[in-house]
Amino acid sequence: MIINKNDKKLDDIKNRGAAMEGDYLHTASEIISNVRKNGDKALFEYTKKFDNFDINKDNIKVSRQEIEEAYDNTDEKLIESIKKAHDNILAFHKLQMEKTWLYETKHGALLGQKITPLDSAGIYVPGGKAAYFSSVLMNALPAVAAGVKDISMLSPAVNGKINSAVLAAADICGIKDIYKVGGAQAVAAFAYGTESVKKVDKITGPGNIYVAMAKKLVFGVCDIDMIAGPSEILIIAGDNAEPKYVAADMLAQCEHDELASAVTIVWNKKLAEEIEKEVKKQLEILPKKNIAKVSIEKHSAIILVDNLDEACEIANNIAPEHLELYIDDALSHIGKIRHAGAIFVGSNSPEAAGDYFAGPNHVLPTGGSAKFFSPLGTYDFFKRSSIIYYNKASLQAGSDDIITMAENENLQGHANSIKFRV
Amino acid sequence: MIINKNDKKLDDIKNRGAAMEGDYLHTASEIISNVRKNGDKALFEYTKKFDNFDINKDNIKVSRQEIEEAYDNTDEKLIESIKKAHDNILAFHKLQMEKTWLYETKHGALLGQKITPLDSAGIYVPGGKAAYFSSVLMNALPAVAAGVKDISMLSPAVNGKINSAVLAAADICGIKDIYKVGGAQAVAAFAYGTESVKKVDKITGPGNIYVAMAKKLVFGVCDIDMIAGPSEILIIAGDNAEPKYVAADMLAQCEHDELASAVTIVWNKKLAEEIEKEVKKQLEILPKKNIAKVSIEKHSAIILVDNLDEACEIANNIAPEHLELYIDDALSHIGKIRHAGAIFVGSNSPEAAGDYFAGPNHVLPTGGSAKFFSPLGTYDFFKRSSIIYYNKASLQAGSDDIITMAENENLQGHANSIKFRV
Repeated sequence: MIINKNDKKLDDIKNRGAAMEGDYLHTASEIISNVRKNGDKALFEYTKKFDNFDINKDNIKVSRQEIEEAYDNTDEKLIESIKKAHDNILAFHKLQMEKTWLYETKHGALLGQKITPLDSAGIYVPGGKAAYFSSVLMNALPAVAAGVKDISMLSPAVNGKINSAVLAAADICGIKDIYKVGGAQAVAAFAYGTESVKKVDKITGPGNIYVAMAKKLVFGVCDIDMIAGPSEILIIAGDNAEPKYVAADMLAQCEHDELASAVTIVWNKKLAEEIEKEVKKQLEILPKKNIAKVSIEKHSAIILVDNLDEACEIANNIAPEHLELYIDDALSHIGKIRHAGAIFVGSNSPEAAGDYFAGPNHVLPTGGSAKFFSPLGTYDFFKRSSIIYYNKASLQAGSDDIITMAENENLQGHANSIKFRV
Repeated sequence: MIINKNDKKLDDIKNRGAAMEGDYLHTASEIISNVRKNGDKALFEYTKKFDNFDINKDNIKVSRQEIEEAYDNTDEKLIESIKKAHDNILAFHKLQMEKTWLYETKHGALLGQKITPLDSAGIYVPGGKAAYFSSVLMNALPAVAAGVKDISMLSPAVNGKINSAVLAAADICGIKDIYKVGGAQAVAAFAYGTESVKKVDKITGPGNIYVAMAKKLVFGVCDIDMIAGPSEILIIAGDNAEPKYVAADMLAQCEHDELASAVTIVWNKKLAEEIEKEVKKQLEILPKKNIAKVSIEKHSAIILVDNLDEACEIANNIAPEHLELYIDDALSHIGKIRHAGAIFVGSNSPEAAGDYFAGPNHVLPTGGSAKFFSPLGTYDFFKRSSIIYYNKASLQAGSDDIITMAENENLQGHANSIKFRV
């Protein structure tokens, strides 16, 4: 798995999540139209068809009793850990909250930006094996930090049940309504509302390809988060990096999914070999060996480069979701990283700490989109309104220019609205 | 045009931009696939077909000579006004820039958020009558304020020419490459790159329905701005509002487009009647009377309510693109407005001042999307990367909880990456 920096495998890794759309888009589009037109009726029919769950307006919502049962069915120690993670994540996201501001111009105008939380947010949580309580925390708490009052959730219910730890986490986060539906039909229900499901202003959360396409299609009707692809890590490992830790962090990524990717960049051949050996050794005893083996072999690599600068150049080109800067004096080098979803700095900062507990969000841009997307954050759950307060003096000072510009765009009505006033 | 607050015309106004998608989406999807696959060849063919312009790799870019000619063909007074507007808009958008920050936890971890400008941005400018130099300023300058180095633009060239004032404004903003292409094919070129057109990280700017659908489809390949619908204003006019100004502001909105909307809310019947009279009077002498008449009659109204609070409730429900708070002591009431793209405060703040000159952006969320979208801003042209720096103490303090959570999600590899370290 050790390759040099010009190996074409790097391109294969970058493009591994590229195939999308086509038929999926068409199917999602049909489902959305149907739910938009027929509301609950369509939503219930799709749920019967795809999730094999007989749903109606009386059993679509998780009851208080089901929540209590979920707590009973969850390890107490886990509940305590979830609560601590909750506090850390909420504390960090409160730091991302912004304030309304005003700025005074030389002519006495006040210009500014008003911050208002969204009225509502909806979280999509996948069903089955991909039902992670950590996703609930990471999607709900930025909305809580922003001051969103009405947070709801939907998740496909396998045999009418949603994972207990997921329900407990949702309750700990203060999520109000939890609906037992999933798929493109559920996204449509959140976007347009049905008799049973309340429309939301923003939909976030991971899902399969139909969910991703549905989110794309309803974008604009409500807001959505980014479109998530398969997960990835890039580790820049300096001479003193511990091979055992590097290998463990690679495998932590690769156990997620056969399409996951772990790339480590080194400038020390011996280190590369030691990491490779450790990966093989740790892989043998990993419970999810079968998954990790595929992603290690197909989508992962240890790349040999000449030095740190070259490593950073490749990292910025890949723009990984997770980046570990596992080098000496790591924090002083973060300026070299332009594109990454999250930067884990130094030997004591494994990705797993950020996945669950540290505070920053684990919903991160994948597949190179860290070049333009940010982690999910509190800023996703408030919006800005511009404030323009002109007084007589500021309007007078600008009037000639405004009229000139309006008339040059053939918008005489715009010009009139100034002329009449001055 | 005077209606009461329960009139169903209000719903018609809210839904006037709703019909979309369907065939447009399919056509845009085909065009994108073709450009993605065949690059310049497809881009040139579509440009010949749709814009009737024989384009090739030698004439696709606007030359320095064409820029010089554009300056010569533009009124000097207009150039001066554009430069002043440039300075105001840039100054305001610099205030929206954020800084990298770090926060220290009680166990000595450093958590934070790194701010990095996008590498590149691409602006779409429509051709023909909708080629507005003000759009260039409003799309380019937030990117400039964010520190984006590589800003390019594309616009369909009618007979091979782009509007002179548009070219001059682009040059004043420091835009590097200007391509003479438009439509869904141009959006695809920006998203995927072709031999002639450089791929960008984010596409912004208005366009027709094919452009809007194409942007939706490439979302994720690059970032896009919001999907713009027809423009609108909502004016809350108190007892002392001057009917002549209110009418002028309504007509300024309505001259844009037959689908534009101007809604004024009052709690004074006499004022309502005076505004109505003024609208009729001013409409008669408006150059774009034919357009404005349709939008006034079909999509505009003066709504009579009981008081300011009721007016604000309707405003928040509509979530207008532009909101004029034309009441006494207006600034003290902005807390009552939760949803609006931009709030114009008091009698001296007509929308036209903000459209061109004051500084805040004129690219604003339409069609009720101010409930969740913000004005285009500097924050659209940088992204955040999370920073997680744990030391031994902070990793030790969190290790038990992280391991508990990882094991409960059946991710032993994640747990191992912590166990090995502590």
